[in-house]
Amino acid sequence: MGNMETVDLYLHNAEQVVTCASHGPKRGPAMADAGVIERGAVAVKDGRIVAAGPAAQLDGTVTAERVIDCTGRSVCPGFVDAHTHTVFGGDRAAEFELRIKGASYMEIMAAGGGIVSTVRHTRAASVDELARSAAARLDEMLALGTTTVEIKTGYGLSASDELKMLQVIEGLDRDHPCDIVPTFLGAHAVPPEFEGDAEAYTRCVVEEILPEAAAWYASSRFAERGVPMYVDVFCEDHAFDLDQSRRVLEAGIEAGFKTKIHVDQFNSFGGVAMALELGAASVDHLDVTDRAEIEALGESGTIAVPLPAVNFNLGMTDYADARAMMDSGAAVALATDLNPGSAPCPSMPAVMAIACRYQRLTPAEALNASTINAAHAIGEGEEAGSIEAGKRADILVLKAADYRHIPYFFGGNPVQTVIKRGRVMSL
Amino acid sequence: MGNMETVDLYLHNAEQVVTCASHGPKRGPAMADAGVIERGAVAVKDGRIVAAGPAAQLDGTVTAERVIDCTGRSVCPGFVDAHTHTVFGGDRAAEFELRIKGASYMEIMAAGGGIVSTVRHTRAASVDELARSAAARLDEMLALGTTTVEIKTGYGLSASDELKMLQVIEGLDRDHPCDIVPTFLGAHAVPPEFEGDAEAYTRCVVEEILPEAAAWYASSRFAERGVPMYVDVFCEDHAFDLDQSRRVLEAGIEAGFKTKIHVDQFNSFGGVAMALELGAASVDHLDVTDRAEIEALGESGTIAVPLPAVNFNLGMTDYADARAMMDSGAAVALATDLNPGSAPCPSMPAVMAIACRYQRLTPAEALNASTINAAHAIGEGEEAGSIEAGKRADILVLKAADYRHIPYFFGGNPVQTVIKRGRVMSL
Repeated sequence: MGNMETVDLYLHNAEQVVTCASHGPKRGPAMADAGVIERGAVAVKDGRIVAAGPAAQLDGTVTAERVIDCTGRSVCPGFVDAHTHTVFGGDRAAEFELRIKGASYMEIMAAGGGIVSTVRHTRAASVDELARSAAARLDEMLALGTTTVEIKTGYGLSASDELKMLQVIEGLDRDHPCDIVPTFLGAHAVPPEFEGDAEAYTRCVVEEILPEAAAWYASSRFAERGVPMYVDVFCEDHAFDLDQSRRVLEAGIEAGFKTKIHVDQFNSFGGVAMALELGAASVDHLDVTDRAEIEALGESGTIAVPLPAVNFNLGMTDYADARAMMDSGAAVALATDLNPGSAPCPSMPAVMAIACRYQRLTPAEALNASTINAAHAIGEGEEAGSIEAGKRADILVLKAADYRHIPYFFGGNPVQTVIKRGRVMSL
Repeated sequence: MGNMETVDLYLHNAEQVVTCASHGPKRGPAMADAGVIERGAVAVKDGRIVAAGPAAQLDGTVTAERVIDCTGRSVCPGFVDAHTHTVFGGDRAAEFELRIKGASYMEIMAAGGGIVSTVRHTRAASVDELARSAAARLDEMLALGTTTVEIKTGYGLSASDELKMLQVIEGLDRDHPCDIVPTFLGAHAVPPEFEGDAEAYTRCVVEEILPEAAAWYASSRFAERGVPMYVDVFCEDHAFDLDQSRRVLEAGIEAGFKTKIHVDQFNSFGGVAMALELGAASVDHLDVTDRAEIEALGESGTIAVPLPAVNFNLGMTDYADARAMMDSGAAVALATDLNPGSAPCPSMPAVMAIACRYQRLTPAEALNASTINAAHAIGEGEEAGSIEAGKRADILVLKAADYRHIPYFFGGNPVQTVIKRGRVMSL
């Protein structure tokens, strides 16, 4: 009794504690193991996990301010959403309907739709308006189990509007329970002012906007707390070519950012190889990545992030070959890609449900991809993504006794209780 | 002021009140109209809708015990789930994982999976156990906006076990806020005791089990309250052939039941034509229904119920041609088909999200299919499925100002507040 540690919260008698614990992102075959402790327990103190293991071992070692009886339930890490565009103005429900009715891309653009409509609404919105709508989305994401979220700029596309988005992102990190990781995506699309001249806009990003973003970051709460900043680019036909993409990423590296890339969504022309050469933290989309680049990915430390909610949302029947990526040894992470056009989806469980069915991830692989691997994709691998002593106490109590129900029983919310930094959230 | 009516609940200032009002199920082009009242209001008294219309017209006519301000939100009818197997024992998460890993149907059966596993668990479970697990599912469905649910037997497959399921279904109707409509599906599969002899089991259903179900119904709360009972059959290779299916349905008609049929999921051999001849209320699945039968459906009063959650769950890329059905003039309803094997999905919004993307239903068509048409598919068309004076006050306040967000913003829960028979549910 003399050695009993007093903790704030004790999750007791879970049918499974699924740790997703690993050293670094799980690669290849290791992703098949979710790290299940049967009849497990987790102890939390000062917002951190202090112990996780079989209840029979932990029970005698702690006294807790608050105990949650997890009988009949399982416990897993909070989900990490590694690729989102959560901050935006307006919505594109009308465009969604037009598309169903058979409108072409050009007709949608003519009706004022497409990304330019989101840019227009985002530019027109105030910081408060953007923060309010994004916070409502984060509320939904948190209720669905997401506790850490990467958020990109990229609907401002001018120095002042990109900075406005960064300001919103910082405010969300300050005011919302979710932890946020910021990404500068000034090169998301060519804005109307630069129509037809991606080259001129690339120069604008590299020479004007990115330096302002870097200056902003240096005095932001992210830098202060050691949270990295990323630079990202949409490397694609009609967006930014290989050379332009490289210049944007290199400018980001120069400014001290880590790198990501939107690549191979529709066309493959060497973006993955370039990103690997630059040591990108992740390469995202990968729908048309060829076999040789998948093999190269498997040998790299870069994380592969397929985004199947996009394929589902567009009514597609082809999905990125995540199975081949894992088989090549690559670490795969999942993400919603939450955005108003191609992925209006706040739910990591929905993404897992799609990935298991259309990309043949097992439930264990899908969970590792949505926790520990996703955390490593956004520089949070030491802080989040697994149930291990020392990490943030971002923990989910699931409705089911078996974690496989997360993707199996789909369309609803598999999460009973969300614990964020040790706080039991009432949602 | 003298003419003001006092009501229990007043939904005020909704950006849209989407009524789904119609005379009978909406057929063909009429499904395109969801019945949107801009800046609308709804008045509720004694669990019924007493008025719905523009707020500007209603505001001066009622005083309310409770007012819900729906500014920034829209309002629509509670969803009706017209085809479910909500009552079952066990789950099939392990089989889900095996299937992803490439196990064949035979390997899954050998591992104890498939429908026989659900029959085994359902038979082994007590009424209380079945009621408890089904009630938890209904809780999730209700939170996702479903207020009326059809529930089938069909995992008992013996007189005593089918009766046990009916008893559970009656208890759910009594104890759970959702309204339930019962369906006898004794001919769901051939049970192990009759293996390889569908003919002998068909005789058992017609001569023994169905008469007991009919006697049970006569003294049930459903008959007492005028809620119809349905007979259903799985008309398919390796289940029940055309002649066996006809005998089951005719026995049901003889017993006073209305009819439904699982038909054309994998093989088409005349089941739709037979069901139309028998005046079936609905024909369900319809994945491989041919053009001539779709045309016949369009000229009939029978409702077409494609079940796209099944196709999604099985990772399929083909879906029933609901577009052709509507274009032929057929009334289409949607349903989850909630069951532990082919559709572990409690969510009508998820079904709408799939149907809009893979079957090209517009948001209005998907909403009509999930409310008024679904109500007609289960004999509840006069009681539920639309916001009209006289109907049950089963109403949803949606998070979004525009009802099109229900299928557009997918994977979460579009519902802010559920009102069931006039009661504001806290979920």
